[in-house]
Amino acid sequence: MKILKHLCWIAVDWGSSNLRMWALNKKNETLDSFSSNDGMLGLENDAFEPLLSHKISNWVSGDISIPILCCGMVGAKQGWMEAPYATVPYNLMQESDSVKVACTDNRLDVRILGGLKQNNPADVMRGEETQIRGFLSNFSNFDGIICLPGTHTKWVQVSAGEVISFRTFMSGELFALMSKYSVLKHSVNSDGWNYQEFNSAVSESISNPQKLFSDFFKLRADDLLKKVEKSVLRSKLSGHIIGTELAGAKPYWLGQNIVILANSDLSKVYKAALEGQGVFAQEVDATKCTFDGLTKAFSLIYGRY
Amino acid sequence: MKILKHLCWIAVDWGSSNLRMWALNKKNETLDSFSSNDGMLGLENDAFEPLLSHKISNWVSGDISIPILCCGMVGAKQGWMEAPYATVPYNLMQESDSVKVACTDNRLDVRILGGLKQNNPADVMRGEETQIRGFLSNFSNFDGIICLPGTHTKWVQVSAGEVISFRTFMSGELFALMSKYSVLKHSVNSDGWNYQEFNSAVSESISNPQKLFSDFFKLRADDLLKKVEKSVLRSKLSGHIIGTELAGAKPYWLGQNIVILANSDLSKVYKAALEGQGVFAQEVDATKCTFDGLTKAFSLIYGRY
Repeated sequence: MKILKHLCWIAVDWGSSNLRMWALNKKNETLDSFSSNDGMLGLENDAFEPLLSHKISNWVSGDISIPILCCGMVGAKQGWMEAPYATVPYNLMQESDSVKVACTDNRLDVRILGGLKQNNPADVMRGEETQIRGFLSNFSNFDGIICLPGTHTKWVQVSAGEVISFRTFMSGELFALMSKYSVLKHSVNSDGWNYQEFNSAVSESISNPQKLFSDFFKLRADDLLKKVEKSVLRSKLSGHIIGTELAGAKPYWLGQNIVILANSDLSKVYKAALEGQGVFAQEVDATKCTFDGLTKAFSLIYGRY
Repeated sequence: MKILKHLCWIAVDWGSSNLRMWALNKKNETLDSFSSNDGMLGLENDAFEPLLSHKISNWVSGDISIPILCCGMVGAKQGWMEAPYATVPYNLMQESDSVKVACTDNRLDVRILGGLKQNNPADVMRGEETQIRGFLSNFSNFDGIICLPGTHTKWVQVSAGEVISFRTFMSGELFALMSKYSVLKHSVNSDGWNYQEFNSAVSESISNPQKLFSDFFKLRADDLLKKVEKSVLRSKLSGHIIGTELAGAKPYWLGQNIVILANSDLSKVYKAALEGQGVFAQEVDATKCTFDGLTKAFSLIYGRY
């Protein structure tokens, strides 16, 4: 128990797999924070409020109502409460749509930020818009492309604070499915990594994306017939998938000003793939962007600061 | 129990998921047959012989030794006994490599047929070579392409009884993974089918295979934003996958003489995809080809008939 005397509001990043909360004072300084694996995919609809009540009991004493601003998949139809998608083009520096959630616990003054949608071609994002908002709150004049690698990688065109257009590629999910469930699972079962093999597979698939499915099976045959190292096969599997994505996303990166917004090794992998094509990309930290995006949204909604 | 007086040999198609056996007389006429789901993936290495002993007890009385010829994944490294791959080019009308399996049950005189491999680009098949042999045993002058759709679809160039070259595409497995495990699983959860949507997705992906991963996510967005019917989304998912395969397999089908060797609806789906590109393909029945391939291999190995 550490009751926070100067607690002003709580920022919440509530995704599919994880929950992250920051307790903030008036100056948006972090008084306390934590993260857990209480992602929305593992929660029934009636489990969100009790979980939040329980979590904030360490921070809040008595009956004080605390503004809590959430972003991410918590606002999906299968989440706590659906927060509608706003349509692009959308100015993230001036607008911040959200829905208020009615709670029985009087201490909870909860809002969930909505995602963004594009009508043609049909596309959606939920959570990434907050990260982009966070990046733009620090670089408001940015004009270019933000790449957000992940399960569903987003390539987003941004100008003058606005999201103009975007495309989602199911590359991360495909890599996970192939390496966990496919006939390749034993062949790529390695923690090793080989950037040279990765980059050469990226280049092959940028040039010949139509060969993807035979490239996949060739990894299996290379294992059976040539005993190629598993770390090499894993790097090539990733390279073929990211190369195929880059072939499809070419209008988004060729000759563009590019920022990669991601955590962890994935950012390095995309940076290497782009550099192999002679394209420089700047990396920025996703967690910081999420935090900055929530504070910016808070100021837009509550009109403070 | 129906002991078969005129039993001469037993033909066995032992794949990953299924087992099919034919009891044959001297003229290769079927005296009895059955199939079960005792595929090799579900069997430990020491389970193959007891299963076979049990299965033939209905057909064989006493201690008579019966030739049993098997094809398929039973000959994989993870199967009963590894039957080595022969290297293409390989003449299926003149050669039939196999390994003998030592059994403790004296009634079992077992041989497993080997698969085929290609060194460059690395590729393998196991089971399909027997189906191709069966087709060629009826059409020995065939010169063209045999397409064998399935989990791992094969495109095989055949001339004068020889397999010249082939490529494997992991399309069927990808469709299964995407429709069972991916974020699309609810969006494509339908038994319906729409050939028009399928064919238009095939054409889109033949022209733009690099868009595959964004085409995948667009199905999700079409579901969320436009409530597109699940049967349409399922047909498009299949169309994008088969279209991407056809883009990569173009050298195998453009201006070629094509046979589709498959069972079930899959054959129709590939035929429709090719016809949408103005290419005619002849369908032949896979089970009959497997049977004919086993009998042809039997005659090559045992020199009878």
